[in-house]
Amino acid sequence: MTDTNLTVEHAVRGLDGSYTTNWEAVLANRTGRMTSSMIRETLKMMATPGMISFGGGNPAPELFPLREFQEACRYVLEHDGPSSLQYSVTEGFPPLRQFLVEKMRKYGVPAEQENILIVNGSQQALDLVGKVFINPGDTILTDRPTYLGAIQAWSAYEARFVTVPLDDDGTRVDQVEKILEREPVKFIYCLPNFHNPAGVTLSLERRRKLVEIAAHHGVFIVEDDPYGELRFEGEDITPIMVLHKENTIYLSTFSKTLAPGIRIGWIVAPAKVLGRLVQAKQGADLHTSSFVQMVANDICQRGFLRQHVRRIRDTYRERCGVMLASMEKHFPSEVRWTHPQGGLFLWVILPKGMDSMELLKSALEEKVAFIPGPAFYPDGSGKHTFRMTFATASPEMIEEGIRRLGKVIKSQMTGKP
Amino acid sequence: MTDTNLTVEHAVRGLDGSYTTNWEAVLANRTGRMTSSMIRETLKMMATPGMISFGGGNPAPELFPLREFQEACRYVLEHDGPSSLQYSVTEGFPPLRQFLVEKMRKYGVPAEQENILIVNGSQQALDLVGKVFINPGDTILTDRPTYLGAIQAWSAYEARFVTVPLDDDGTRVDQVEKILEREPVKFIYCLPNFHNPAGVTLSLERRRKLVEIAAHHGVFIVEDDPYGELRFEGEDITPIMVLHKENTIYLSTFSKTLAPGIRIGWIVAPAKVLGRLVQAKQGADLHTSSFVQMVANDICQRGFLRQHVRRIRDTYRERCGVMLASMEKHFPSEVRWTHPQGGLFLWVILPKGMDSMELLKSALEEKVAFIPGPAFYPDGSGKHTFRMTFATASPEMIEEGIRRLGKVIKSQMTGKP
Repeated sequence: MTDTNLTVEHAVRGLDGSYTTNWEAVLANRTGRMTSSMIRETLKMMATPGMISFGGGNPAPELFPLREFQEACRYVLEHDGPSSLQYSVTEGFPPLRQFLVEKMRKYGVPAEQENILIVNGSQQALDLVGKVFINPGDTILTDRPTYLGAIQAWSAYEARFVTVPLDDDGTRVDQVEKILEREPVKFIYCLPNFHNPAGVTLSLERRRKLVEIAAHHGVFIVEDDPYGELRFEGEDITPIMVLHKENTIYLSTFSKTLAPGIRIGWIVAPAKVLGRLVQAKQGADLHTSSFVQMVANDICQRGFLRQHVRRIRDTYRERCGVMLASMEKHFPSEVRWTHPQGGLFLWVILPKGMDSMELLKSALEEKVAFIPGPAFYPDGSGKHTFRMTFATASPEMIEEGIRRLGKVIKSQMTGKP
Repeated sequence: MTDTNLTVEHAVRGLDGSYTTNWEAVLANRTGRMTSSMIRETLKMMATPGMISFGGGNPAPELFPLREFQEACRYVLEHDGPSSLQYSVTEGFPPLRQFLVEKMRKYGVPAEQENILIVNGSQQALDLVGKVFINPGDTILTDRPTYLGAIQAWSAYEARFVTVPLDDDGTRVDQVEKILEREPVKFIYCLPNFHNPAGVTLSLERRRKLVEIAAHHGVFIVEDDPYGELRFEGEDITPIMVLHKENTIYLSTFSKTLAPGIRIGWIVAPAKVLGRLVQAKQGADLHTSSFVQMVANDICQRGFLRQHVRRIRDTYRERCGVMLASMEKHFPSEVRWTHPQGGLFLWVILPKGMDSMELLKSALEEKVAFIPGPAFYPDGSGKHTFRMTFATASPEMIEEGIRRLGKVIKSQMTGKP
């Protein structure tokens, strides 16, 4: 053997004849677009004693139904036995899919089991949508800001993002129209209810207009609705999937109503689209844990969710109210913010020229944290914005955290400590 | 608005002005390479009463440790409380990663926590490897036959496959060398222990030769080892990762030792590679279920696996023995098969010209099932071969199933019923 066949760029040879793979050289091109989530990295930083964190997207852990999980685990292992630990079908556990069929119908979304795929949280739904629809260079239309998990999932398929701004009624649909007239778009991604990160809700009038424009241009919509059930103010608004029938892929999750650590979400899609998503999931991980699906199904079938969601709403309503009142009291008048009707998040807009990354550094010194806006902009802009969650801290801690943050913002604005 | 902007190929407009997305036209190119697993489709067919199925890759369900799962669920929910249901880090639950560090070290593989990523079964490991390394058109070197889940996962990233045959000592390593001299290969995929589907084991001499060739050509190896612990005959052989140090990505799973329905596998890789895989997993589904990881960890930490794996080995040794003896008795002398030293599978080679798909049709009428060979060939060849598992049927059922199958093979060979 001679050395002539060594693919030099793929490996580095040492003087002793040993070789080491040049891992950077063998990576797929798409890895150049992969990033670690700024949130997940920031969260590690935030886990210090005494920190009041408005970062993260965790639901309130004191509301997790531990007793119901205890009962369901015991029941499933006793009654379903080995089948709860065996391989199962990719589509998901049929009784849980049937539960979701009925849940979706109550929500106005017509569905059969053939329209439902169980996935590992809605992050996997986003990944599978990317895998099935995005060619490198395809353009996806999103809000700015938008959910950073979607940016992360679709960047890995080398998507391009074109964005429209939000206002208090959600997506600026007039600007969607301009973009669709100008360039081809693969699909529109929207978060109609209690937007992550912006906390705003798309009005019914705008939903109708968005669907009209999408239909006119023959573009389908990916409707991401993880927080829809967590409305604590006002009336439910018709889902886009109801208005846009066969041309929408709807995503949701148990992460914010039951618990995120079980990793169960679902996709509702036209049957032929679902078949493609099932194929993609089969190659990705065969199926979501049979055991966890059966446990979640047991809790759902007992009718527990309805009362539990009411309790979550009450808690978040109170905490959101405290946060808004505290901001009114402690934030300078030049700062603006959104007024959510549900969900977990609100959005803060600082005077232009301010930098939320800089602000975070000072805030961490005062032991209060949030997520800087640029994480939610595909192009990294939005420097003068940030996201806060009102879901996890107690009312007292919210008041105290906002007081600290108000102090930091003021000192940043005046340039004085 | 006029109709001129309708992206015609992406949507079909009805006479009433309504439109329907032309879903076939909006699919990503990679979907052309996605297929449903023949196994998973065939399994549905096989689930009829009275069927003796040697298809599927399910471990024996009567060995699942239900009582240990009961105890672990109770313990985790009581002692770890809400954190078992909350979001957690992408890398995996640290105590479980530490358990795997020690497990890998006992196996001879040097590892630290920074080398371990917990995934949803080893199918997700295959998918993440594809996502991080495969550009469309990249060539992957595999055995023929090879694990069909790998073909499925990597086809979705538009890989090309180049294959080498197997014999009783595993991969024909001499042919690997010829291929590497001829063309660039991204990586070599191998299943050294109790190959799925072939049931053969790569000898130490061939492992050394394979590593030497791979090093010479600067190619890394993906070592898939889901069955390594299930050796019921002979001595353990040094893992490739031990021989090929920094140039191997090692995959394994709890699916065959604990239970597949929990969907927990792991990747061992050089730290910088692991970082890329973590990024890819973050976009794919954030993390594997915290709850299930903590339950698996609890069972593992109690030292249960060691004795349990011994029980699984004893059961599979007996069943494999019965299957081999029954084949000796009932199969025509022209048929050949492999003699596994572990794992779940053996491989049958019919006389050339016979067709295992045709054979399956007749076999199903006699209520006995297996998986035809072409499912395991990237190019769909291998018509005169099939895979059987000895793991799930009782010794009596194995004897009866092989008797039925022998009858079907004989009648197919003579052309007489």
